[in-house]
Amino acid sequence: MDPIEEFRAIEEIRQLKSRYFRFVDTKDWEGLATLFCEDAVFDTRGAAGQEEPAEDGPQVSRGRKAIVRYISEGLQHAVSVHHGHGHEVTIDSSKEAHGVIAMEDFVEWQKPFKASLRGYGHYHEVYRIEDGAWQISKSTLTRLRVDTDLPAEAM
Amino acid sequence: MDPIEEFRAIEEIRQLKSRYFRFVDTKDWEGLATLFCEDAVFDTRGAAGQEEPAEDGPQVSRGRKAIVRYISEGLQHAVSVHHGHGHEVTIDSSKEAHGVIAMEDFVEWQKPFKASLRGYGHYHEVYRIEDGAWQISKSTLTRLRVDTDLPAEAM
Amino acid sequence: MDPIEEFRAIEEIRQLKSRYFRFVDTKDWEGLATLFCEDAVFDTRGAAGQEEPAEDGPQVSRGRKAIVRYISEGLQHAVSVHHGHGHEVTIDSSKEAHGVIAMEDFVEWQKPFKASLRGYGHYHEVYRIEDGAWQISKSTLTRLRVDTDLPAEAM
Repeated sequence: MDPIEEFRAIEEIRQLKSRYFRFVDTKDWEGLATLFCEDAVFDTRGAAGQEEPAEDGPQVSRGRKAIVRYISEGLQHAVSVHHGHGHEVTIDSSKEAHGVIAMEDFVEWQKPFKASLRGYGHYHEVYRIEDGAWQISKSTLTRLRVDTDLPAEAM
Repeated sequence: MDPIEEFRAIEEIRQLKSRYFRFVDTKDWEGLATLFCEDAVFDTRGAAGQEEPAEDGPQVSRGRKAIVRYISEGLQHAVSVHHGHGHEVTIDSSKEAHGVIAMEDFVEWQKPFKASLRGYGHYHEVYRIEDGAWQISKSTLTRLRVDTDLPAEAM
Repeated sequence: MDPIEEFRAIEEIRQLKSRYFRFVDTKDWEGLATLFCEDAVFDTRGAAGQEEPAEDGPQVSRGRKAIVRYISEGLQHAVSVHHGHGHEVTIDSSKEAHGVIAMEDFVEWQKPFKASLRGYGHYHEVYRIEDGAWQISKSTLTRLRVDTDLPAEAM
């Protein structure tokens, strides 16, 4: 692959994920939808920091619309801060890439109960060119630790 | 624009902002002055997280000297930590660029009163080539949240 | 130096340090060993935030094996989170580079005593091409602040 194209792809993917964090925290759900492939998968089964994630369940969202619905419903009554650190991007071909990015989030809900969460982990992701732009095609969250007073059934 | 020049500009602006955070926290005020255009504007009216920032006031500094005075006076009796995350840089021409960078700060003052602040937000910035180097020409801070026991009149 | 080679070196060193943080927190000690030159020096005398670091002592590890032993023994009974921010990388030649990266860590030990540490500072580093890849040849940690209930003799 031409190095210029490779560097451009890395930079675009880095900015793609930076927009992800910004759009989530500023609640720009329309913008957020543009960052995911139409058939993207968003898997947060590991988000509670448990050793063996549940087989499936509501924490796996399939498709751009379901992903944006899942994130926006979870955060509609919250002030959220999500930061990404040290994006390791690898370009696999002119249309495919993957990466790992460290993350930290701090979420505080006012409704339906007062609760907060501080989490630390990694997003393991796959990216694809779709409609002429790099988009997230798969995103899987694992955690190093989670500190929260959320009730267990809300995790 | 030549892609090599574009990549170099993005990297230089990324490092420019990294030096900003480092010079602020290590209190290198002479170094900090080199990062701003002579006529730069530094606008922290949104720094307290209020919905509608005040019309103007001491939180808008105009000119390199005023900016360094504002930051250094605010932090002279504090231990501060400022981190930047996910710099989205866009090169507009060979001499102009803009960007957004997520931020978090943790400041603890000993004088004139004991107080601390933890803030989370974004810098919205404009950059320009001046004296042969990329410098910050405008920096506007918005917040997602601020947790502080600072007295209101000190914000 | 050819700009393409320079950009590639910067990107590789950025990812090298991102893997460092990830391998430390996921306790991938075999992976961690691959990131350091065989004769690397890891100096954390400044890690406690003291003004004048001790002359020498156990906080200076010399050689890849000693470094991995020092880090892995210190964290074996801990959950750790280490993040890097704003990597300022300078390429000095086709085989040598240096850089500064801001850091934050959050470590919680269960044994031999319950204790935790939150630290904020900078890694000052030298990099070298060895065995065909960029590796860390010297890493020196300085701190802006440390908040901990660790007993003094454990620092």
